[in-house]
Amino acid sequence: MRWIRYTAAGRIAYGIIDGETITEVKGDPFDGYEKTSTTHALSAVRVELPVVPPTFYCVGLNYAEHVVMAAKKLGIPANLPEKPDVGYRANNALIAHGEDVIIPPDATEKVHYEGELVAVIGKRCRNVSEAEALDYVLGYTIGNDVSERTWQKSDRTLWRAKNSDTFKPMGPWIETAADLDAMTTHVRVNGTETTRFKTNDMIHGVALYISTISKYITLQPRDVIWMGTDGNSPDLKSGDVVEVEITGLGVLRNRFVKPATA
Amino acid sequence: MRWIRYTAAGRIAYGIIDGETITEVKGDPFDGYEKTSTTHALSAVRVELPVVPPTFYCVGLNYAEHVVMAAKKLGIPANLPEKPDVGYRANNALIAHGEDVIIPPDATEKVHYEGELVAVIGKRCRNVSEAEALDYVLGYTIGNDVSERTWQKSDRTLWRAKNSDTFKPMGPWIETAADLDAMTTHVRVNGTETTRFKTNDMIHGVALYISTISKYITLQPRDVIWMGTDGNSPDLKSGDVVEVEITGLGVLRNRFVKPATA
Repeated sequence: MRWIRYTAAGRIAYGIIDGETITEVKGDPFDGYEKTSTTHALSAVRVELPVVPPTFYCVGLNYAEHVVMAAKKLGIPANLPEKPDVGYRANNALIAHGEDVIIPPDATEKVHYEGELVAVIGKRCRNVSEAEALDYVLGYTIGNDVSERTWQKSDRTLWRAKNSDTFKPMGPWIETAADLDAMTTHVRVNGTETTRFKTNDMIHGVALYISTISKYITLQPRDVIWMGTDGNSPDLKSGDVVEVEITGLGVLRNRFVKPATA
Repeated sequence: MRWIRYTAAGRIAYGIIDGETITEVKGDPFDGYEKTSTTHALSAVRVELPVVPPTFYCVGLNYAEHVVMAAKKLGIPANLPEKPDVGYRANNALIAHGEDVIIPPDATEKVHYEGELVAVIGKRCRNVSEAEALDYVLGYTIGNDVSERTWQKSDRTLWRAKNSDTFKPMGPWIETAADLDAMTTHVRVNGTETTRFKTNDMIHGVALYISTISKYITLQPRDVIWMGTDGNSPDLKSGDVVEVEITGLGVLRNRFVKPATA
């Protein structure tokens, strides 16, 4: 089942996508819903963030190749994480599919994409085993963990490097029937593929992360866990359109814009 | 003016405290309110979190003495932050005044308090100067940035060291008329003062943080910025009651409990 959150006629609602048609529901996939008789053409609505998370989790280094390359660029030794220590991102930075990533005027040319699988928590969960962890996932969507690498290196935290407004595109929707092992992540810049990796080729998988987090933390419905990225990004320029596609999930598309300085 | 968020008769509301009496409002201090004719005795309500933040900011190292001591304990060189790079905490960990901090069963004895001033953002703000920054603060409350120091040292991120469930007491209410320079922060364990510092003796102040963050990030109503701590904490044991008092703001009181292992 494919869940979309959208605006139609000035109102935000959840709906279920079937082909090119959305059936609006009353309620939502987290707290319960009923189908209504209202339908919309998918092309006629504005796509909204699939969810606004109470807590926004993000796995930092979860693919071997990316860890090695990132360490090299930052001039530090590459250490593969031995444990699933989760990180965080900030809600202010979230934008939906189709919205523009605004590059801050003082950013350097080192603005990069990171295409990521996103697990959306469907049910409250605490102290769950790895075997049962995926039962608490409503479904999956796509994230682009946009990063300014100069600030990532110079600042004590990731605040503006990773959390500047608009730096966290997520969407376009949530797919509940997902086969992690069958997925490939493709990233394209202006239509040309620049990164490709097996989505589930993670150092620590979704189930292990959920199980580990839940030992100390209660995961809530709508929480999201961004699962990290592999490979490398070219430096992105104003006007570039970045598409992150994951098999079975769809395409998250956003344009990067650097406003002319006054 | 002193704003409290509370439960009475099974319903959460905002109210204004005058002495020992709460006057309930319709609405809230962020989006507008009207006073109602309903009043409650302060002692008769359950105190709730004063706010649930869209984004939970927290300043890491903002008092010179604390930076030096923390570095010594972690076995790393002490570097005073040259820039106001803000960090984050996670909403799952928030609890109200009066609720118990639950120490995880596998935590070490190195569980510490950090008494902190908390600025509560009242109005959307982007690109504000340091001179106008405080106009965007609704008021101030108190936070206890509970930390498990062994995990803080061993893990790649602060996830369980700082964000285990119940590790972020905040409250008891929001005071809008606050004189930062007149404030002293006192922390007591079981009634005995263990830490005292001038609240505004920060390396980088509230206004500079807000102005700096707002260059890249839109601060939203209800966002909170925890301003860091000074001094040192003893190791806390099950049953200890920690009180953080800040002049003019009140007292945030929470008991620490380590459940007996089964």
